[in-house]
Amino acid sequence: MSEEEKGLNLLVFSSDLDKVLAAFILATGAASAGMRVSMFFTFWGLNVLRRERIAKVRKPFMDNLFGMMMPKGINDLKLSKMHMLGVGTALMKRTMKKKNISSLPELLRTAKELGVRLVACQLSMEVMGLTKEELIEGLEYANVQTYLEDASKAKINLFI
Amino acid sequence: MSEEEKGLNLLVFSSDLDKVLAAFILATGAASAGMRVSMFFTFWGLNVLRRERIAKVRKPFMDNLFGMMMPKGINDLKLSKMHMLGVGTALMKRTMKKKNISSLPELLRTAKELGVRLVACQLSMEVMGLTKEELIEGLEYANVQTYLEDASKAKINLFI
Amino acid sequence: MSEEEKGLNLLVFSSDLDKVLAAFILATGAASAGMRVSMFFTFWGLNVLRRERIAKVRKPFMDNLFGMMMPKGINDLKLSKMHMLGVGTALMKRTMKKKNISSLPELLRTAKELGVRLVACQLSMEVMGLTKEELIEGLEYANVQTYLEDASKAKINLFI
Repeated sequence: MSEEEKGLNLLVFSSDLDKVLAAFILATGAASAGMRVSMFFTFWGLNVLRRERIAKVRKPFMDNLFGMMMPKGINDLKLSKMHMLGVGTALMKRTMKKKNISSLPELLRTAKELGVRLVACQLSMEVMGLTKEELIEGLEYANVQTYLEDASKAKINLFI
Repeated sequence: MSEEEKGLNLLVFSSDLDKVLAAFILATGAASAGMRVSMFFTFWGLNVLRRERIAKVRKPFMDNLFGMMMPKGINDLKLSKMHMLGVGTALMKRTMKKKNISSLPELLRTAKELGVRLVACQLSMEVMGLTKEELIEGLEYANVQTYLEDASKAKINLFI
Repeated sequence: MSEEEKGLNLLVFSSDLDKVLAAFILATGAASAGMRVSMFFTFWGLNVLRRERIAKVRKPFMDNLFGMMMPKGINDLKLSKMHMLGVGTALMKRTMKKKNISSLPELLRTAKELGVRLVACQLSMEVMGLTKEELIEGLEYANVQTYLEDASKAKINLFI
């Protein structure tokens, strides 16, 4: 198989903790095995890339409204099931720690170190009212055409 | 890359407004870039294809029951998150309009104009109790084997 | 197309009845058409593989907690939408039976007979606190690297 054909491309649509964990476990596993990996964050997935603390960004009221209601970064994600007002989510995190499984922030750091490309969807940023200053460093910004070109080169494509 | 290898095939399982929007943005983006695009609607995804107003179709009570509870066409879809009794969904639609992003009905029209194949899963129609008269015009009807043949030819496959 | 290129690989993350049904309909359809099929069960998807009745397995309290709250095997799955305290799920099952569509347990049996590979994700088993004795027979056990190798060979990859 040629290098060209060995890529993994993840379209991360969800901001559910469990799905995002699965995405990063796949991404870091693939990158450490030498595969080219791109993660394209769109819609709710953008919340994974939000900074936790930022200087207040001036923006229209409606944009603020979305921002206030969505998870604020990687430590604020919730399970898609059994969140149970936070008990299930906390339990999952504690279990993973106890069993020495990397946490999501650790996986994000590893992904960056292994050269995983983290791409933010600009159209979604506009819909969600999110600006570049509100997102973490080290991102690329792209549109649907860029995604399609990348995904056409990858061997494995998943919508998460 | 040969023509054969440049397709996008979307298996649209969901009827959530956000996921269906993502599907149509991908589909129209790919088609406008010259890719062959098929969208195969199955399970809840079939609701995207329902006509809003139809002459009453006579059918068994249980089939009617499903039909009554599911979204009635493309204008009746809800966000998977933050629907909030309609407030979140309306906010998303208004935000998109204000920012000049095509609405879902516009994207559907564009998809048809660009030659995107819209395929309804016949097995799901049977399970959901939906008849051809209840679905919009311009569809193809197919089963899982047709999907698998199509998907085997596409370069990008996603389950949405 | 070579044999190598005709595979279907499903990453089954969900334990929702509707999504798992879709996965097994795809898997059995593909296998009966001569495609190589692998289903890799991860996170909530592992619940599909749980035995219904097992001798009590001794394990830490927190592992038991997850186990108690998650669906206990293939007959205990719920619809992702319209579950309605069980009414919607029961209605779906009854409708399928009435229309002579295979139930999920029947589809699982067919999948095994057709040689579909059923693989349990070991990392997820650890997170969920599930042991081999709690899962059905005839499974393979693997990690993310195995998944990536398999998926790289498949023509169609889906995350369900």
